[in-house]
Amino acid sequence: MKRVLLKVAYDGTNYHGWQVQPGAVTIEGVLNEKLSKLTGEDITVIGASRTDAGVHALGNVAVFDTLSSIPPERFSYALNTMLPDDISCDGSFEVPEGFHPRKTDTEKTYEYTIINTEFPVPGRRNYAWHVRPKLDVDKMRAAASVLIGPHDFRGFCSSKTQAGSTVRTIYSISVYSEGNEIKIVVRGDGFLYNMVRIIAGTLANAGGLGKLTPGDVQRALDTKDRSLAGLTAPPQGLCLAEIYFPELDGDVM
Amino acid sequence: MKRVLLKVAYDGTNYHGWQVQPGAVTIEGVLNEKLSKLTGEDITVIGASRTDAGVHALGNVAVFDTLSSIPPERFSYALNTMLPDDISCDGSFEVPEGFHPRKTDTEKTYEYTIINTEFPVPGRRNYAWHVRPKLDVDKMRAAASVLIGPHDFRGFCSSKTQAGSTVRTIYSISVYSEGNEIKIVVRGDGFLYNMVRIIAGTLANAGGLGKLTPGDVQRALDTKDRSLAGLTAPPQGLCLAEIYFPELDGDVM
Repeated sequence: MKRVLLKVAYDGTNYHGWQVQPGAVTIEGVLNEKLSKLTGEDITVIGASRTDAGVHALGNVAVFDTLSSIPPERFSYALNTMLPDDISCDGSFEVPEGFHPRKTDTEKTYEYTIINTEFPVPGRRNYAWHVRPKLDVDKMRAAASVLIGPHDFRGFCSSKTQAGSTVRTIYSISVYSEGNEIKIVVRGDGFLYNMVRIIAGTLANAGGLGKLTPGDVQRALDTKDRSLAGLTAPPQGLCLAEIYFPELDGDVM
Repeated sequence: MKRVLLKVAYDGTNYHGWQVQPGAVTIEGVLNEKLSKLTGEDITVIGASRTDAGVHALGNVAVFDTLSSIPPERFSYALNTMLPDDISCDGSFEVPEGFHPRKTDTEKTYEYTIINTEFPVPGRRNYAWHVRPKLDVDKMRAAASVLIGPHDFRGFCSSKTQAGSTVRTIYSISVYSEGNEIKIVVRGDGFLYNMVRIIAGTLANAGGLGKLTPGDVQRALDTKDRSLAGLTAPPQGLCLAEIYFPELDGDVM
């Protein structure tokens, strides 16, 4: 029995998110189906990040166990011949038997994209959040700086969050503009349910879509009161860019 | 009677191109339908660029005649409330009665995007051409330089081209890389059928997806032999970025 890790990229537009649910097409569901077909076994993957409907990924990760004689490195190539064109497998390799991508330390990088134009840009509608008021990147950075470090992010997650502890560490938040788009890149040791989308909404509210100040953001953090943070930015602007596992250090992701 | 110009952006993925054709959904068809509904008149727009199926636009242009009392500047706002979310109208204004966007001098800018990665990137599949071999941007630029200026581009258009003269002037071709994408920006006074896609294919063939040299490109130009130029790059990487009309100089596009 081998445990194999897959690096998975997808366009989340046409999926009901990662996690298998009855009567809905999901990324996990497609991977389970194709891997089961490929191996002749009954495969259920374990995902590192169970992204929501409409959210994208460049570097999500899944592991599964197999008795197949297919070399672990070949799974990505074999899978890509079977996957629909909105899911791609960008690499595969064997990992230790006990490796569990949600029960080990991680460093995750998410990107949130805002398109800051007067009129919506049709080709970006599924990949960016259209915000009409001109945003001030410096104000967004000032609000972001409050969030860096280890904090209890209870005020920055959905009430549906099931995590035991709501303490997380944000290593960095970069905000930069590229033409008429603004990118928010958030790196941390993990994120609560909707946390990155609430951070993106809060920074937009601080940047000109509203009047949040860095002091207001600090207050939301201190009081853990969700209603004091900014709005939840829509899913289509969010992309899980990369996951790094210190436990697998040395493996090329 | 007023002639009104619309600036139109669209995601061409789900359309059979610009031009009305029976039994197919087209950009022009949608504009005719919505404008007719809005004005109560029977409106048929005249497009500046009749883009192919799957090709996108940030700045295509259409004009139409109307007796409507709607102020010309308001058409963009009224239309945007009616258009599907993959078409957007980014401005409208009155133009002289005789203005015809295909029978006046123009300067058009097209962008062609290549994604140059080992594995396809799902979120870019409808907006870029996936090329696996590593492309050399300098070699692409050397091949591009041959094409600058006024030339007979008969070797660089589809056999379906109906234009009388096949002489066109290319003002500039810029090739630059942004992360794992390569953008080719072509500016000229007009383009023949498939011409920008054949230029993009030729530059890719010169950059590492094949072995075309600048001398080969020169020979394709000199002999006007389509088979000596490169392949026709697929439509989804192409975007009509901007059209400038000297006749309307002073109007904000």
